[in-house]
Amino acid sequence: MNVHIITIGDEILIGQIVDTNSAWMGQQLNLCGFQVTTIKTVSDQCDDIVKNISQSLQEADVVLVTGGLGATKDDVTKKAIAECLGVGMYFDEKVYENITSFFKRFGREPNEAHHQQSYMPESVQLLDNKMGTAPGMWFNHQKSILISMPGVPYEMKHLMSEKVLPALKTKFGTRPIFHKTIRTAGHGETNLALKIEDIESSLPDSVKIAYLPNLGEVRLRVSAYGEKGENETQLQQKVEDVSEKIKEKLGDAIYGYEHENLSIALGNLLDEHNLKLVTAESCTGGNIAARIVQTPGSSSYFQGGIVAYSNDLKMRQLDVCEETLFKHGAVSEATVEEMVQGAIKHLNVDIAIAVSGIAGPGGGTPDKPVGTIWVAVGNSKKTKTLRLQLGKDRLKNIEYTTKTALNMARLFILKNA
Amino acid sequence: MNVHIITIGDEILIGQIVDTNSAWMGQQLNLCGFQVTTIKTVSDQCDDIVKNISQSLQEADVVLVTGGLGATKDDVTKKAIAECLGVGMYFDEKVYENITSFFKRFGREPNEAHHQQSYMPESVQLLDNKMGTAPGMWFNHQKSILISMPGVPYEMKHLMSEKVLPALKTKFGTRPIFHKTIRTAGHGETNLALKIEDIESSLPDSVKIAYLPNLGEVRLRVSAYGEKGENETQLQQKVEDVSEKIKEKLGDAIYGYEHENLSIALGNLLDEHNLKLVTAESCTGGNIAARIVQTPGSSSYFQGGIVAYSNDLKMRQLDVCEETLFKHGAVSEATVEEMVQGAIKHLNVDIAIAVSGIAGPGGGTPDKPVGTIWVAVGNSKKTKTLRLQLGKDRLKNIEYTTKTALNMARLFILKNA
Repeated sequence: MNVHIITIGDEILIGQIVDTNSAWMGQQLNLCGFQVTTIKTVSDQCDDIVKNISQSLQEADVVLVTGGLGATKDDVTKKAIAECLGVGMYFDEKVYENITSFFKRFGREPNEAHHQQSYMPESVQLLDNKMGTAPGMWFNHQKSILISMPGVPYEMKHLMSEKVLPALKTKFGTRPIFHKTIRTAGHGETNLALKIEDIESSLPDSVKIAYLPNLGEVRLRVSAYGEKGENETQLQQKVEDVSEKIKEKLGDAIYGYEHENLSIALGNLLDEHNLKLVTAESCTGGNIAARIVQTPGSSSYFQGGIVAYSNDLKMRQLDVCEETLFKHGAVSEATVEEMVQGAIKHLNVDIAIAVSGIAGPGGGTPDKPVGTIWVAVGNSKKTKTLRLQLGKDRLKNIEYTTKTALNMARLFILKNA
Repeated sequence: MNVHIITIGDEILIGQIVDTNSAWMGQQLNLCGFQVTTIKTVSDQCDDIVKNISQSLQEADVVLVTGGLGATKDDVTKKAIAECLGVGMYFDEKVYENITSFFKRFGREPNEAHHQQSYMPESVQLLDNKMGTAPGMWFNHQKSILISMPGVPYEMKHLMSEKVLPALKTKFGTRPIFHKTIRTAGHGETNLALKIEDIESSLPDSVKIAYLPNLGEVRLRVSAYGEKGENETQLQQKVEDVSEKIKEKLGDAIYGYEHENLSIALGNLLDEHNLKLVTAESCTGGNIAARIVQTPGSSSYFQGGIVAYSNDLKMRQLDVCEETLFKHGAVSEATVEEMVQGAIKHLNVDIAIAVSGIAGPGGGTPDKPVGTIWVAVGNSKKTKTLRLQLGKDRLKNIEYTTKTALNMARLFILKNA
């Protein structure tokens, strides 16, 4: 079963917005075992839409269209679809009622545009959209299926998850499939692959491991593809068995599963051990703290921190000695160690993270080139340090350092709590 | 002149990565006055590539292809192109020399894969790629032009900027065009449109204003489209005239032009007035500081800050009174005022930004629902405060608050420095 995705919108063609809808749809379809063979973006012009939908209906089993619906878009997609399918339009009372009641809830009266919006191509099967006024549309056309959804991401995602994917699964009785994502940090893709070489080479054809690297972390996706008749529990068992074996090999390189990012994983660990954390940041400028705070509920373990960008603040707020700064420089092991101990003492907590470095693009010296960054994590008894040597891209350096610091804090707690 | 963009890569079809190349290319082409009518993503399969390139060569004047080049991709794009154009492949000595010398610089010997990589479709005109080993390829085919580039973003951008766009401009002698981006913050799109209604309605057909809104800010793009023969200086003058008029109407709602973001604009202003800034953040958790530090050279005006996530830190580091927290709560005007004054005094600077709020998704009360956020900016004499009432999306709330705070600091300096 092969799928085409068509996105309608001039704003994507002129690069005003990036088409993230298609990536999400591709991901979800792939996870269900459906193959996306083409993604297209076409203009708001009716002719263009007609030409591309017709082409895709020839080539694909399922054509998913997003965008080009709603009053301001002049509902151009619906007209184009009617033309492709060779059908007329009819006024749908129920759609009009939905729109009317939606606007009345906000104290507004429906207008002529909403009346126009209630015209639908004949032969449509409507898909109820709980997130907006434009319903999804399903058409059976010869051997193919054409589905149209609004382009607003949360409306599209709602329709895909609740209506489209379940219906496609029923219709095409796809090969059952089960995925699990294992999240690792601190090791490169090649290094990980080497460590689990034995496991990978002895996998049956129906189980695959995919490596998804992303700046300082690598996610491993283990997928089991079943045959018709095989049930999900059996597949899940296969995936869990492989996942267990991988865990034995990779140990604490694994920080979490599925959507559990480093900030969440660290937070869970702090909560578990009832520890309070602070940050003392120079070159990352608050980014580590900001990342921790992205997790709801972080106030139970995160007290706050000091952004000590200037040497003055390093001394004033974190008790870094003037002599240390003079002798070793602000970017040094001695400085980040003192930052950790100063933060713990000053802010009265269990654990502190500290970083100081040259984020770039300028400011390097022969001894300490751009990208030299010291990271430290410690409690009142012990401090662990690490020197990073990164590139010249300021934002990449800050991001990589942030992840490294969160991961170091996680490993520190695992070993010392 | 109409353009198709084709991106080759299974990793985009399965949603593993988002295609940002096409958006960038669309933007650059549009800025040059070329019209992108279709963007397609196709699989790494040779058949699919052949079919889609052939289709696009029928429909477009220029077809731009990215991806599917290089040793690990098995150079599938080159084979597909040769097939589309009905030509053979030849071994290019110069390409091989380039690859060889590239690897020798890193002390590595070229291997068989690099030898294979040096085969090119006959009829190619090579475009020198200074950023990598795979050159760009230009083909004239009947009435159309086919151009292939590597998918690595910085290689593609280099080839587009240095080779492809200049050559297309020469070839198609496009309608001259001039753009200027005016960046505003603190006002909605509708509000801005109302303020410059007179200007917009009296514009000649050849000058357009586009509104590009993005969470707390709106960019206005003023574009002048010339006729052949009209030169760029004339167009620039037209755009500058409109821009001047807009500036008169919008005043300090405008914070910058082109790529100057809020962090840069605020930094320039602080430098200009020789002022030192600190931040005192609760619910944004360091995000404001991190945004300021994204600008290289920020150490000249940014001293650092306190992330006072807990009440303890608000009292300990920022001298917020226990009584204030008890009487008004941590999310209150009184608290953010004290945070500003505490930061200025404690950290010995000119200006401080403070925020405290309920970022969500939980934690609200009837008096202070989720999304209630107080922002304050001040110097030792005066503090300006603002209450925001936002939604329930934690990350959106943090981002909106960050921009609002940076913009408030900018306006405060303009009025009080």
